[in-house]
Amino acid sequence: MELNWTPQQNMLLRMVGEFTNQEVAPYDMQIHADGHYPEGLLDKMIGTGFLGLMLPRQYGGADFDPEITAEVVRRMAQGNASAAVTLEGHYKTVEQIIKFGAQSLQDKYLPTATSHIFAFGMTESSGGSNPMGIQTTARKVGNHWVISGNKIMITNGGLATVYCVLAKTAPDELSVFVVDSSMPGFSFGKQEDFIGLRGVPVGEIVLDEVTVPADHLLSQQGDGMLVGDSAHDDARILMGAALTGIMEHALDVATDYANERKAIDVPIGHLQSIERKLADIAIGKETTKLLYQRAAALKVAGQSYSEEAAMAKAYGSRTAVSACDDALQVLAGYGYSREYPLAHLILDARAMEIAEGTVEKMRSAIAQSELNK
Amino acid sequence: MELNWTPQQNMLLRMVGEFTNQEVAPYDMQIHADGHYPEGLLDKMIGTGFLGLMLPRQYGGADFDPEITAEVVRRMAQGNASAAVTLEGHYKTVEQIIKFGAQSLQDKYLPTATSHIFAFGMTESSGGSNPMGIQTTARKVGNHWVISGNKIMITNGGLATVYCVLAKTAPDELSVFVVDSSMPGFSFGKQEDFIGLRGVPVGEIVLDEVTVPADHLLSQQGDGMLVGDSAHDDARILMGAALTGIMEHALDVATDYANERKAIDVPIGHLQSIERKLADIAIGKETTKLLYQRAAALKVAGQSYSEEAAMAKAYGSRTAVSACDDALQVLAGYGYSREYPLAHLILDARAMEIAEGTVEKMRSAIAQSELNK
Amino acid sequence: MELNWTPQQNMLLRMVGEFTNQEVAPYDMQIHADGHYPEGLLDKMIGTGFLGLMLPRQYGGADFDPEITAEVVRRMAQGNASAAVTLEGHYKTVEQIIKFGAQSLQDKYLPTATSHIFAFGMTESSGGSNPMGIQTTARKVGNHWVISGNKIMITNGGLATVYCVLAKTAPDELSVFVVDSSMPGFSFGKQEDFIGLRGVPVGEIVLDEVTVPADHLLSQQGDGMLVGDSAHDDARILMGAALTGIMEHALDVATDYANERKAIDVPIGHLQSIERKLADIAIGKETTKLLYQRAAALKVAGQSYSEEAAMAKAYGSRTAVSACDDALQVLAGYGYSREYPLAHLILDARAMEIAEGTVEKMRSAIAQSELNK
Amino acid sequence: MELNWTPQQNMLLRMVGEFTNQEVAPYDMQIHADGHYPEGLLDKMIGTGFLGLMLPRQYGGADFDPEITAEVVRRMAQGNASAAVTLEGHYKTVEQIIKFGAQSLQDKYLPTATSHIFAFGMTESSGGSNPMGIQTTARKVGNHWVISGNKIMITNGGLATVYCVLAKTAPDELSVFVVDSSMPGFSFGKQEDFIGLRGVPVGEIVLDEVTVPADHLLSQQGDGMLVGDSAHDDARILMGAALTGIMEHALDVATDYANERKAIDVPIGHLQSIERKLADIAIGKETTKLLYQRAAALKVAGQSYSEEAAMAKAYGSRTAVSACDDALQVLAGYGYSREYPLAHLILDARAMEIAEGTVEKMRSAIAQSELNK
Repeated sequence: MELNWTPQQNMLLRMVGEFTNQEVAPYDMQIHADGHYPEGLLDKMIGTGFLGLMLPRQYGGADFDPEITAEVVRRMAQGNASAAVTLEGHYKTVEQIIKFGAQSLQDKYLPTATSHIFAFGMTESSGGSNPMGIQTTARKVGNHWVISGNKIMITNGGLATVYCVLAKTAPDELSVFVVDSSMPGFSFGKQEDFIGLRGVPVGEIVLDEVTVPADHLLSQQGDGMLVGDSAHDDARILMGAALTGIMEHALDVATDYANERKAIDVPIGHLQSIERKLADIAIGKETTKLLYQRAAALKVAGQSYSEEAAMAKAYGSRTAVSACDDALQVLAGYGYSREYPLAHLILDARAMEIAEGTVEKMRSAIAQSELNK
Repeated sequence: MELNWTPQQNMLLRMVGEFTNQEVAPYDMQIHADGHYPEGLLDKMIGTGFLGLMLPRQYGGADFDPEITAEVVRRMAQGNASAAVTLEGHYKTVEQIIKFGAQSLQDKYLPTATSHIFAFGMTESSGGSNPMGIQTTARKVGNHWVISGNKIMITNGGLATVYCVLAKTAPDELSVFVVDSSMPGFSFGKQEDFIGLRGVPVGEIVLDEVTVPADHLLSQQGDGMLVGDSAHDDARILMGAALTGIMEHALDVATDYANERKAIDVPIGHLQSIERKLADIAIGKETTKLLYQRAAALKVAGQSYSEEAAMAKAYGSRTAVSACDDALQVLAGYGYSREYPLAHLILDARAMEIAEGTVEKMRSAIAQSELNK
Repeated sequence: MELNWTPQQNMLLRMVGEFTNQEVAPYDMQIHADGHYPEGLLDKMIGTGFLGLMLPRQYGGADFDPEITAEVVRRMAQGNASAAVTLEGHYKTVEQIIKFGAQSLQDKYLPTATSHIFAFGMTESSGGSNPMGIQTTARKVGNHWVISGNKIMITNGGLATVYCVLAKTAPDELSVFVVDSSMPGFSFGKQEDFIGLRGVPVGEIVLDEVTVPADHLLSQQGDGMLVGDSAHDDARILMGAALTGIMEHALDVATDYANERKAIDVPIGHLQSIERKLADIAIGKETTKLLYQRAAALKVAGQSYSEEAAMAKAYGSRTAVSACDDALQVLAGYGYSREYPLAHLILDARAMEIAEGTVEKMRSAIAQSELNK
Repeated sequence: MELNWTPQQNMLLRMVGEFTNQEVAPYDMQIHADGHYPEGLLDKMIGTGFLGLMLPRQYGGADFDPEITAEVVRRMAQGNASAAVTLEGHYKTVEQIIKFGAQSLQDKYLPTATSHIFAFGMTESSGGSNPMGIQTTARKVGNHWVISGNKIMITNGGLATVYCVLAKTAPDELSVFVVDSSMPGFSFGKQEDFIGLRGVPVGEIVLDEVTVPADHLLSQQGDGMLVGDSAHDDARILMGAALTGIMEHALDVATDYANERKAIDVPIGHLQSIERKLADIAIGKETTKLLYQRAAALKVAGQSYSEEAAMAKAYGSRTAVSACDDALQVLAGYGYSREYPLAHLILDARAMEIAEGTVEKMRSAIAQSELNK
């Protein structure tokens, strides 16, 4: 139970919980098996207004703060982690436009953010760890920018219609631009076939001399890393939330099974080997939750939250993989079956040791933050 | 390099290696995706004589000892873990007939073991951990035994034609019998849909008053646990071998990638975070190999090998899951793709924390063995 | 930085921090080496009023809530873990008298709690895990209770003058009584020689027909487990705080060293293997802090905090041992030297995997809590 | 039980076992407490001939091979890890003189190796990880070398009379020389005060223009790394053996306690949480043993053993720390007491994650070995 939500926040979160139970959770296994969302699910999510929660009211949003969007992602993940990550990819992108977009850009795109998925493209085939190694360029031509290059492994890539993209505006300078899929020169490339989060489309966009007005630049020219880092920080809070939801899902399945299944005469929940696993899952869930909530609270308070967000993702992803693996072992042979969700929960959680910065990069960032205190 | 193989043994192992490279490894990804072996693979394995390696020569075998069958399983697993586990399930069953079968039973069934898959059925839906809780019964009727009950989650179940089954011959007495799928009253039940080892058929057999001659009893009446434990011990050596092969496969993929992929200018294999993972995979592979080889050497020397076999399986299975997970992280986004084998290697290895006795049961057995020294 | 402390709370915590830096931290190594506090340290702690922080004002206290006492313990542990644990043992005992003591008992003992150490005796030589197996008895004689038995491994045992003790008041009934060291029949027994927390006296008290008035019974007759569990819960929050302080100490030492020490030309803090350790220490510290603060916040809010307190101790103790071990490795040969505090920090933290309920008991409690949700 | 020892080898090992039980094990706790060996222990070890086991017979040795010296170290460690490590430091040094020493040098020093401790000095205060950063120099003056510099953290430093030292013979060239403590210009420096292996003197030697004849150069000029690496490899096998002995000691203590101690009515050895620990200790001991024995067998067979030796040390040291920690937890409060050896076993084992190359360096070496296969 949370201590401090307002009645309005609690109402929203209850509604999200009900939506998840009724419209998302029943399709969890199917989404993993099919590799895509069921017909109509995204429309229902749009219909509830989930996409625009954090938007200012003038753009059709509800002005909820980052603590609440994180809670929405967590509850969604209790039903299906892919749906939660599709929201995460959308939220982090919209948020950068709110933070760094010119008024004219906001007026143009934010009203569509309640009904269209947004996405952020950073990675290229040269690897995700060295931003200065990217090949995508934007060159100034009169009052426009002309952008060319490929971005791969984009969360919601192929599904989203609006994209932030990181591009070189000079040999040592990175900037972020907004493009949309209706623009000449924009096309979709290869879709990834990943082992988990199989509902989330992850794909490539190809920009061939895509021309955008000057106000499509986020923040200032050369602020690419600033915007990109901000997107990472925001995404990592939401990933901590998604990972918490995954662990809650796994814990539910494991406790239900442990309460029912008997070894000889007592429920297996009384065996120390089962207790150990259940306790570790519960601790993992609780610590990850506290980390992302802490990062979100710092964010709301206007303080630095980068390190805490990195912790939520780095710690949470490893912990969630381990927790889902423990839950699988509680069910033993049944856990190993495709009839139970535990294997796909492991694979879903596993994505977040890689996406939005690998665990190794998170550790490096956290360590450098500590070394400079 | 092994220190002590004979030229004949080395020749066999080279042949197995070539067979794996040419006939098994190319289908590894496909086997996981399809959930079954490609047409003709089992016939090729039969054609090479792999099924009968440990059979005495008079039954068409080559009289290889348990150290060699383990090496064969390991090499097969380097190409595809399912194929290795199908061999494991077959070998452990054939071996109990060799150890405990009457001469007449051996004469009847062992000649078929070079061309037919054998399997051992112990688990029932009441759970795998309490043998005395099983429901399958065998009652003596004249000079025959009449067997009824269901066995589930049998490795090679549905594929095998000859089965050892554990049955109650009195309220507190267990015995093992040989049945075959041509007998009246024998039928196949539910096939499992597991998350890994997807080539291996795992299924149920249903015995409805199946009648077998008296010599289908292995060892003596009441020796069910003795035979069952022996099968477990033998299986666990082979699982240690299969897990070693899986880790060798993962290590190959990871080192190839680390040698090629560059971060900025150096191959990523020079990053400490990558070195750590590669070293841990290599150590995991080596220690698991030494454990199963030690158990096999003790077995050949006629000494007790039960504890060492349990170690090979318990330690090897957790270690292999962790090693394949490390390898996945070396490849990062590519590791997370279905185009690379690492996710299915994790899932393949994960089976062996459950099958043939859970890790928890292994630990209990190892601990009790130490407490009674 | 904390978000929500009041100015008064912040002032207290600053004062505690200064006291720790000036009066405690300089003696940290010496306390471990000598096995006792330096002359005068306890008097100084008494002089600052730290012992009575949570006491009502009428008893000379400052009425601080449990969130603040936890913060005091954490800051003390940044300087020396023993001093923090002496406070913990005192606070948890005083708190049970506040919660469960009759008015007359409170009036008698609480005024002394600002200047005398209190302690809680539960464990006996028969083991700490089965309360019903204790041998200490209390029998009603007129309007008094006569108590006999031995309590071992008491935190502050030998130093404290006032003790809560768990005793059998009927074969299946436990109750808690307050005794003091001036009573006839009270004597001190064996002092433990422990590997860590070497400043904390841990010892035995021997009760030989110690006679106390009826109002020395805490809560009702038969409420022994209720009082004992409450003491455990309160202690575990404080242990989470102490463990956080230990990790902060270790992190300080490790980051200072990593900033100064060079490998070839760069500070070792830029090596991935060092970053990994520093990040893990920082994450361990932060998650443990969030857990105990969450438990304390629930306590202040009047909600159940037993599971969260158990998590803070169970997770925090293992995490702190691992964090201090990581810090030791950062310093390598210097970390292994007695000139640096890391070995004794490991040993200090290690106590808390055992004291106030082993990690195994915590996991059991957490798991049962989850199974009954 | 080993499968392949000869009667002579078995006899020696039995003798070592008895010596350990009678002359070493009884002083284990005292050595840790005192920080030095008891009077006469080294003389007794010399009296048994343990120092010269691997020496050729003409030098007073018994010509035992490296598999046997490793077994001697392991058995010694079952009684006291310091004594084992003193042997390790001696053996690794003597062995380099046998491998790389001129005939005249061998004739001069090896006869003394049965009664004098030898030691190898590599590390300087600039750090152990970068050999080219050392300051010790040797310059050729006529037919002699003149050596100046300080070597710190030498195993047996201060106790040993004969030292191999690594020195710069040109800006980019390292060589190894033999010096002895009777030479003009040789003096002892600072002795370390370490947290574990407290019997082993670890100290500094100071060389001030120490002049040695030309034949005191091991191998060729410039072969410093070759000799140093060889010493490391040999040492790491022996460390794997010592770590195995430490784990066997811990396992003995833990199983004895678990067999005797009761929780309610059953020995605690039947609790799953205890079984888990005992099994993990046993597995850790067995895998480490197999690794060092494998490395030793490869060495005897004349094959490369560097990677396997690194594994024995890297894996064995972490595993032994964890195993001794598990054993401590089995004894709970008693494990935390100075009356039991578990804390000092943890601290003894912990040295070997640092000495003779840190775990991080081992992992790097193992990974590079795999990458180059």
